[in-house]
Amino acid sequence: MAGRPVVVTHVESGTSASQPDRVAIEEPLEIRLHGRPFVVAMRTPGADRELAAGFLLSERVIRSADELGAIECCGDAGNIVNVTLSGDAAAGLERVLAERRNVTTNSSCGLCGRQTLESLAVDVPPIATTLTIPSSLVLDLPKTLRGSQTVFDETGGLHAAGLFTRDGALVDAAEDVGRHNAVDKVVGRMLMSERLPLTEHVLCVSGRTSFEILQKSLCAGIPIVAAVSAPSSLAIELAETFGITLIGFVRGDSFNIYAHAHRVIE
Amino acid sequence: MAGRPVVVTHVESGTSASQPDRVAIEEPLEIRLHGRPFVVAMRTPGADRELAAGFLLSERVIRSADELGAIECCGDAGNIVNVTLSGDAAAGLERVLAERRNVTTNSSCGLCGRQTLESLAVDVPPIATTLTIPSSLVLDLPKTLRGSQTVFDETGGLHAAGLFTRDGALVDAAEDVGRHNAVDKVVGRMLMSERLPLTEHVLCVSGRTSFEILQKSLCAGIPIVAAVSAPSSLAIELAETFGITLIGFVRGDSFNIYAHAHRVIE
Repeated sequence: MAGRPVVVTHVESGTSASQPDRVAIEEPLEIRLHGRPFVVAMRTPGADRELAAGFLLSERVIRSADELGAIECCGDAGNIVNVTLSGDAAAGLERVLAERRNVTTNSSCGLCGRQTLESLAVDVPPIATTLTIPSSLVLDLPKTLRGSQTVFDETGGLHAAGLFTRDGALVDAAEDVGRHNAVDKVVGRMLMSERLPLTEHVLCVSGRTSFEILQKSLCAGIPIVAAVSAPSSLAIELAETFGITLIGFVRGDSFNIYAHAHRVIE
Repeated sequence: MAGRPVVVTHVESGTSASQPDRVAIEEPLEIRLHGRPFVVAMRTPGADRELAAGFLLSERVIRSADELGAIECCGDAGNIVNVTLSGDAAAGLERVLAERRNVTTNSSCGLCGRQTLESLAVDVPPIATTLTIPSSLVLDLPKTLRGSQTVFDETGGLHAAGLFTRDGALVDAAEDVGRHNAVDKVVGRMLMSERLPLTEHVLCVSGRTSFEILQKSLCAGIPIVAAVSAPSSLAIELAETFGITLIGFVRGDSFNIYAHAHRVIE
C-alpha cells in the first residue's frame, strides 16, 4: 500500500523538470459468488476479502456473518475474490445473480489494469491531434472553472467539470455530487449538439482523476485532461495507452504532467 | 441548482447553535431505453438529458449522436429520462438491456429520494442505541484517521474510512481510491469477525458523505457518521429517517451536525 512510483513532469513558474512521485493504485476487483461473476469494482488493492464482505452486506446479498462461507482471493493477478454464501443468502443466489449486471470476462488469470485497457482498445481508437497548449493556460483552468461554480461556494458538496477551447475559453461546465456525472453532463451536451470528437478541447475537473474519468474523456476524444487533485495509477495507464495528456495538482503556479507531456509548451 | 436549505447545529469551541445552511442535492435518476429500465444513478438534478447522453456514450451503448433519437424527461418527480436509440444502437438494444443490472421499479411517478429511503426501510431497521459522545471527541477523529493514513501523504489520491470506539480509539481504518470501498473494507472486516451491529461505534470518513456512504453505515448499524467535508441532501434524509447522527465539516475546532444532534454532548 505504498503507492506506485511514477516519473512526472513537474512544471513550476514556467520551468519543467522530471521528478519521481507516487500515485494511488487503482485496479479492478472481480467479486464472484460461488465461482460465478457478480460485479467488477475499481479499488485500491488490499483488504479485498473485507471489501467483498462489506459490499455484499450493503447490497443486501447477505444480512449477517452467518451467511458468509469461505471468502477466497484468487486469480494470478490477485484481482478475484470468490465468496461462498450460506443459509438464506445461498438460497437467494440465483435471484441475486439474475439481478446483477452480466459481467463478461473470459480471463482465466483474473482482470488486471492491462486487460481492462485492452478490452477498451477494441472499442475506442487512441486520440490523434496536433493540439498543444501553453503552461500558463493550464494554470488558469481551475480558476475559470471555480468561477463558474455557483453552488460549490454555498454547499462545498459538488464536483465540477469544465470543457475549454485551446485558447482557454470555457465552453461548458457542470456540477454534480458525482464527479463522473459532471463529466457525463458536459460530454453529453457536446454529443447532443454533434460536436464530438472534442479533439481541440481541454477538460478540467475539480477533484481526482480515476479510470472512469479518463474513460469518459477518451470516448469523447478529449486529448488533454487536467485536475486539481491526484490521478490514480490506472488513470495514468489509460492516458499513456490512448494518447491523452494527463495533468494533476494544478495549484498556484505549478502542476504535474503524468502522461504525454509534449502537448504542454512554454 | 441553488442547493437545498437545511438547518444545522453548528458546534464551535464547545458551543452549539442552530443556523441555516445549504447542501448539494442528490437524487436518483432512472435512465430508460425505449421505456425499459436501464440504470439508476445518484446525481444532482439538472442537465439530466445531457447526463444520460454522456453516460450512454461512455458505456458504449451509443457511438455517436447519430444513434441518439429522442431524449425525454418524464416522471412526476422529474427523475426519469427515456432515451430512444437509432441505427446500430437500436439494433443492439436487447443485448444492452440483458447485460445491465435488472432494475426493479414499479413506480409510475418515477423514483425520488423519499421512495429510495422507503425501499431501504423494508430491509433495514433504524439505528437504536443510547450512545452519546462529547464534542471534543468529534474534533479529534480526523486527526487520528489522518495519522493512520500512510499512503495519503505520499499520493494525495486516497480516501480513508476509520471506525472508532465510543472513547475515540481507532478500531480499524482503510484507504482506497473509492471512498465507498474504504467504508466497505472497514465494515467487512468487522462483519467477518462477527462484530456487527456496530451500535457503539463512530465512523469517520475523509471526504464527503453521500447516500451510498450512509446506506453502508446503516447496514452495519453505525449510529454516528462524521466527515471532513459536506453531506448531500439524500445523505441527510437517510440519516434523519434511520436515526443516524450525521456530522460534517469537522475542521479545526468546529463542525456541523445535520441530523440527530442529541448524540453529541458537551
